[in-house]
Amino acid sequence: MSMDWATFGLDLHVELDSTSGRRSALESALRESIRDGRLAAQTRLPSTRALAAELDLARGTVSAAYDQLIAEGYLTARTGSGTYVTGLVRAVARPARAVDTSGPAAGPRYDLRPGSPDVTSFPTAAWLRATRRALAEAPMAAYDYGDPRGRIELRTALASYLGRVRGVAATPDRIVVTSGAVQALSLLAGVIGRTAGARIAMEDPGLAFHREVVRRNHVDVMALEVDDRGARTDLLLTSDFTAVRAVVVTASHQYPTGVPLHPQRRDTAAEWARSREGLIIEDDYDGEFRYDRQPIGALQGTAPEQVAYLGTVSKTLGPALRLGWLVLPERLIEPVVEAKRYTDLHTESIGQLALADLITSHAYDRHVRSCRLRYRSRRDLLTGRLEPHAGQRLTLRGIPAGLHAWIDLPAAGPSEHDVLVAGTARGLALGYLSSHWHDPDGRPQGIIVGFGTPSESTYPIALDTLNHVLRRLTLRR
Amino acid sequence: MSMDWATFGLDLHVELDSTSGRRSALESALRESIRDGRLAAQTRLPSTRALAAELDLARGTVSAAYDQLIAEGYLTARTGSGTYVTGLVRAVARPARAVDTSGPAAGPRYDLRPGSPDVTSFPTAAWLRATRRALAEAPMAAYDYGDPRGRIELRTALASYLGRVRGVAATPDRIVVTSGAVQALSLLAGVIGRTAGARIAMEDPGLAFHREVVRRNHVDVMALEVDDRGARTDLLLTSDFTAVRAVVVTASHQYPTGVPLHPQRRDTAAEWARSREGLIIEDDYDGEFRYDRQPIGALQGTAPEQVAYLGTVSKTLGPALRLGWLVLPERLIEPVVEAKRYTDLHTESIGQLALADLITSHAYDRHVRSCRLRYRSRRDLLTGRLEPHAGQRLTLRGIPAGLHAWIDLPAAGPSEHDVLVAGTARGLALGYLSSHWHDPDGRPQGIIVGFGTPSESTYPIALDTLNHVLRRLTLRR
Repeated sequence: MSMDWATFGLDLHVELDSTSGRRSALESALRESIRDGRLAAQTRLPSTRALAAELDLARGTVSAAYDQLIAEGYLTARTGSGTYVTGLVRAVARPARAVDTSGPAAGPRYDLRPGSPDVTSFPTAAWLRATRRALAEAPMAAYDYGDPRGRIELRTALASYLGRVRGVAATPDRIVVTSGAVQALSLLAGVIGRTAGARIAMEDPGLAFHREVVRRNHVDVMALEVDDRGARTDLLLTSDFTAVRAVVVTASHQYPTGVPLHPQRRDTAAEWARSREGLIIEDDYDGEFRYDRQPIGALQGTAPEQVAYLGTVSKTLGPALRLGWLVLPERLIEPVVEAKRYTDLHTESIGQLALADLITSHAYDRHVRSCRLRYRSRRDLLTGRLEPHAGQRLTLRGIPAGLHAWIDLPAAGPSEHDVLVAGTARGLALGYLSSHWHDPDGRPQGIIVGFGTPSESTYPIALDTLNHVLRRLTLRR
Repeated sequence: MSMDWATFGLDLHVELDSTSGRRSALESALRESIRDGRLAAQTRLPSTRALAAELDLARGTVSAAYDQLIAEGYLTARTGSGTYVTGLVRAVARPARAVDTSGPAAGPRYDLRPGSPDVTSFPTAAWLRATRRALAEAPMAAYDYGDPRGRIELRTALASYLGRVRGVAATPDRIVVTSGAVQALSLLAGVIGRTAGARIAMEDPGLAFHREVVRRNHVDVMALEVDDRGARTDLLLTSDFTAVRAVVVTASHQYPTGVPLHPQRRDTAAEWARSREGLIIEDDYDGEFRYDRQPIGALQGTAPEQVAYLGTVSKTLGPALRLGWLVLPERLIEPVVEAKRYTDLHTESIGQLALADLITSHAYDRHVRSCRLRYRSRRDLLTGRLEPHAGQRLTLRGIPAGLHAWIDLPAAGPSEHDVLVAGTARGLALGYLSSHWHDPDGRPQGIIVGFGTPSESTYPIALDTLNHVLRRLTLRR
């Protein structure tokens, strides 16, 4: 079955292939059309009712497809006026940046989208040395199938490193090495999802991609409000959250608002987990990067039987390595290990051995330290540049930490769309707050600046461009 | 809730943790008890009725746990006499060899279990050279998040290599690089499983671990008989198989029987797929290793829109790399890519770049060629050694290919258990046919010899030991 949307003024051909499901086919058609520009930014889509009638689908199928694409950031719903193509597609996809960057004309000139570190600082020579050394020392069994938890060399190195640097209570047998943080979250969601009706609470705003990772494991997601003390874990004890079996928190540095979880909120979370047999999933994605003081230790350290701690090298070394880890409560070791085993047996071993060598030789610490200095001065530069606007309509929010900052856009100021248009014209890409809300209707807008992403040489120019765009917009209004 | 099994003469303590599910808790307790020897080989378990009553569980829960462990090879059901611990645990776990091999006293002295190549032949120097070269040439974007399908360098190299060596009709955009073959199968099963009630037919006998990978994606598995022409794909057109949406075949060299899929059976499979919109999953796990002639091209080459082709470096380079690939029909690209994206974004990039370099520089071909020579002479040696028994009760089956051979054990000869006991006493580990049947009741027994596994220096002694064990057993009977 196929359908042309010319009737809606949209030149869109949808093949509703029965094999992969109608909802999925509709999603794919829309996704591709948005990607390749057939559906341009700000295009208004037909109402779910009209499209359902035209395609002979259930209205629920169309709604579900729209919701999916809203979650993924392709579409946006505006109260009372329908569903639109966001035009933020490249920007929104960025935190999960799973797009082909290998082709020509890969990205924007000035990339201030959050999600990646400065990949030009990857320590290639140190990595190669570590690989060579690790392979020279590895037992032959390291080349064979291995433990689903990962190499013992890496788990031993991580247990000590995480204890020292992040205050994590870890022993090698509680650690499962994963192929990045996304897989770690997916494995946990899969285990939680075995209990029928179980839900996972996730921060609102938060990373839309992670919500979809959870949903793909047949687990419903509940929005957990974030305020200036971080996630409102106090709400977990209310009746609305009865079906919640786990909560995902970015405790050290909330993504994207940049606030740390208040000590009282930490206690409440642990208390909830203890009294309700709940699980706290602590996503410590950038815990190494705090610029004003020593980072606060992981929540896991105080409640190791209540917290599944999730870490990654994506922000310290680079996302391409796809190396992450879980530190698990006793009761979750077996189910997570089994899930990992049946997913991909184990994470590849050579990278694990190289990372273990990098950590035990302290080359990893040195690299993190030098990144920290660099990112701190980048954030200082950003703050300095934005101050002239601060008195007007723009405020830089969050603590000095991590690789991103949130700039508030009050209702009276320029909108995300204004910034997008002005930025795109100058080759500037940014992150936007609206794609992070569970439901963006009536929620504040804002810009998320990924100051870690550009190379050292590009960053000052990217910042000039951002400054120019914001100054023009704020002066004009 | 916890329970001691002393009442059944079993010293087994089961913690029925409600969080992870009762069935799962029971399975874990049994699995661990078998692994650490508390439940010894040949121990008879309580009946499902008796155990259910004792633990206050539904009888179905206990049955399901037993079935699971039978599927995994921990237990075996003997008609009319109950359920027993197989005693083949280490042997059975081997094809998926996802056990900790890092500790001391890792394995048996002579390891003839199937599933791994000779890992001592891993080309460490060539791999390091390829890594260094690849990193020197890679664009900076290679260190960032990438395409869920994998690096374009590797997909381009694979498209050409697979066309040349395996007759696969591949273009880079149809290839998805996966973290090993297990993940590839899991992704496909997940996509098939989106259609409610969809089933996957799998060869009987076949790899039990793969059946469990499919089941974990909420897809029922149907047994597809294997005879001396390979999988009985003719049965797919019968009414029993109506709900089957995909069939997994090891077409070049059936695992474990070692027969190739007969041309007529290939045609029937393609015809079924075309007429029923079915999918053939071609698991080409050892297609490079044929010793008497040029390998037969992949089934995929003749039916690219009907076949998802699955390959891996696990048998050519080594399982530790966790690198595999799918070549997909057009209609499956989008759903598989999306599944991969939400599972782990993409497979790590550095290993992909190294493999791409290894393939394009032809170092991969050279390595495969030298392995082929070595494995061929190993198989010849095995055949020569077994011939004296052949007239008696043992027959070597299957074509000269791959890294394993199946030795028939007729009902009148020694049993798997006899071989296990005699082998274990001499430090010899083997694979056994019984763990490969969907339901081992009344099915033939046999030995699966993994002649690729030992190092070059150990192999002759391992073979002497096998020979000695079999000779003693066949003479005695």
